[in-house]
Amino acid sequence: MSAGGSGEDRLIARLFRPIARHPGALGLQDDAALIAVPNGHELVLTKDALVAGVHFFADDPPISIARKAMRVNLSDLAAKGAAPLGVMLAFAIPPDMSETALAEFARGIGEDANLYNAPLLGGDTVRTPGPFTISITALGSVPAGTMVKRMTARAGQAIVVTGTIGDGALGLAMRLDPMRPGFAGLDSKARATLNDRYLHPRPRLSLAAALRAHASAAMDVSDGLVGDLAKMLAASNVAGEIEAARVPLSAAARAAIEAEPALLETAITGGDDYEILAVIPNERLDAFGTVATAAGIGVSVIGHTKPGEGLIVRDVHGAVLELARGSFSHF
Amino acid sequence: MSAGGSGEDRLIARLFRPIARHPGALGLQDDAALIAVPNGHELVLTKDALVAGVHFFADDPPISIARKAMRVNLSDLAAKGAAPLGVMLAFAIPPDMSETALAEFARGIGEDANLYNAPLLGGDTVRTPGPFTISITALGSVPAGTMVKRMTARAGQAIVVTGTIGDGALGLAMRLDPMRPGFAGLDSKARATLNDRYLHPRPRLSLAAALRAHASAAMDVSDGLVGDLAKMLAASNVAGEIEAARVPLSAAARAAIEAEPALLETAITGGDDYEILAVIPNERLDAFGTVATAAGIGVSVIGHTKPGEGLIVRDVHGAVLELARGSFSHF
Repeated sequence: MSAGGSGEDRLIARLFRPIARHPGALGLQDDAALIAVPNGHELVLTKDALVAGVHFFADDPPISIARKAMRVNLSDLAAKGAAPLGVMLAFAIPPDMSETALAEFARGIGEDANLYNAPLLGGDTVRTPGPFTISITALGSVPAGTMVKRMTARAGQAIVVTGTIGDGALGLAMRLDPMRPGFAGLDSKARATLNDRYLHPRPRLSLAAALRAHASAAMDVSDGLVGDLAKMLAASNVAGEIEAARVPLSAAARAAIEAEPALLETAITGGDDYEILAVIPNERLDAFGTVATAAGIGVSVIGHTKPGEGLIVRDVHGAVLELARGSFSHF
Repeated sequence: MSAGGSGEDRLIARLFRPIARHPGALGLQDDAALIAVPNGHELVLTKDALVAGVHFFADDPPISIARKAMRVNLSDLAAKGAAPLGVMLAFAIPPDMSETALAEFARGIGEDANLYNAPLLGGDTVRTPGPFTISITALGSVPAGTMVKRMTARAGQAIVVTGTIGDGALGLAMRLDPMRPGFAGLDSKARATLNDRYLHPRPRLSLAAALRAHASAAMDVSDGLVGDLAKMLAASNVAGEIEAARVPLSAAARAAIEAEPALLETAITGGDDYEILAVIPNERLDAFGTVATAAGIGVSVIGHTKPGEGLIVRDVHGAVLELARGSFSHF
């Protein structure tokens, strides 16, 4: 009951071997890959699985699926302050997946491996009677003792996010119902922004070193800003307060929310942001911001931590926002 | 489009957190795991994915599915001479999978993590509309420069396998057609052996150090002895010759083959052995055998390598066996 079919295996070899140029990949011709972790460094490991129809649309471009699979994992490394060492890739191919689609998927993996210096080290391909399914283990390294954790936020510090929040969740909402009030009137540029942000996370790897240097805690926002922040605060045994009005929004998100105010909640609870959420001592904000600006990444202070427990989200008038939707959690 | 459902997430947490006791797992409450690779060691990485209905039967006991998923990966580490550091586990849960089944699966992962000293470091759980799907990345370490590769076999050396060959493939064949001639007359002990060997690979981790010390090349037999050996020889640019009569068989396999001689080919080409296939210089055979004997693992010399290319399999009369079935290859 092994996977097989030598024709397809040769296709896979033809598509993926040229990508796996790292010497430790051994040309994908051994049972294992071999890498060195830099002296004095620890290994940081993260693993995210994606299923067609659950984490992406089966009809998304295969190159976009590849990018999402790579980047949701690399985003975790970035948030932990780690530099990528490489990725291990497994995927299960459904019966109706074409050679062209596989080739495009391989191209997406290869391009991101180059772009983010995260070489393909090895993996496994199998057949499935079910949906296209991808599992990536991303490996990174940090100088020993410097990984940025989730449970180490302290009270009296700034709560910070990078980039803009909500574009991914709004892009998904637009995909599901393009004619609802928030999206019906958007111009094509705004639509393209939201769609691109949903399809193509941007792992903030250029901030990894600055997070190690300045953040007391960090994580990437994958399951919604509010829910992820609540998890970080709970893990750290501190409370927090943020102002919805200070959550950075793209012009596209702002236009959608203006047309349909309920979408603000989608934006701040919806997920698929893949921005960095960090808690940073106030006196370190300038230093962190300088690095981010140099990297072309916006940084916004959206609130602060305090002793206690729980998260309060305030609207523009200072009233406490009651949010209907919780957030999701992986293990 | 994230996976979710906080009830199920709590269930997962309840089932898997107690297993993940390694400090680097951070209680499965961070985005990443953190481990140190021992000084002077390199990291060995392997990844195998398994799909219900493809790599195991959907109605296999969940604890057996867990064992297979762990052990096919640990078997790769063993063959490379690596000691386990831990595993990263992702799995996709179908709609009809019960809490009881999930709990049993978790128990199987936890027991094997203990048994093989391969702690659960982290992972991901997602939902799927398709079959139960598991992906494990196993991490191991070797003293730098000592990983046992597939492409380094030399001519004039012994071809060796551990344990017995064919039980897994025969166990599968028996499962698919229990009343065919080879299996109809087997006693219950023989049936139990074949079934157990199909369900429960035994990674030969106790031989890892001896393989590093003595083998010029090694791999685990996952896709069939003949096909895997052919791959190793081709990767090493040497030829080989083995005698079918010297391939070690269990009493159960011998009984099945006696009743249905065509099953010999199933045994030597069929896969699911998870024994070690190694090429070892003749003068090292005694030293390797001593370690194996001490570990309670049989070692059989089944042939030898020679200059040239290709693999010849001889029957008991010395005639060349023509084998209909090729083997499978993963990447």
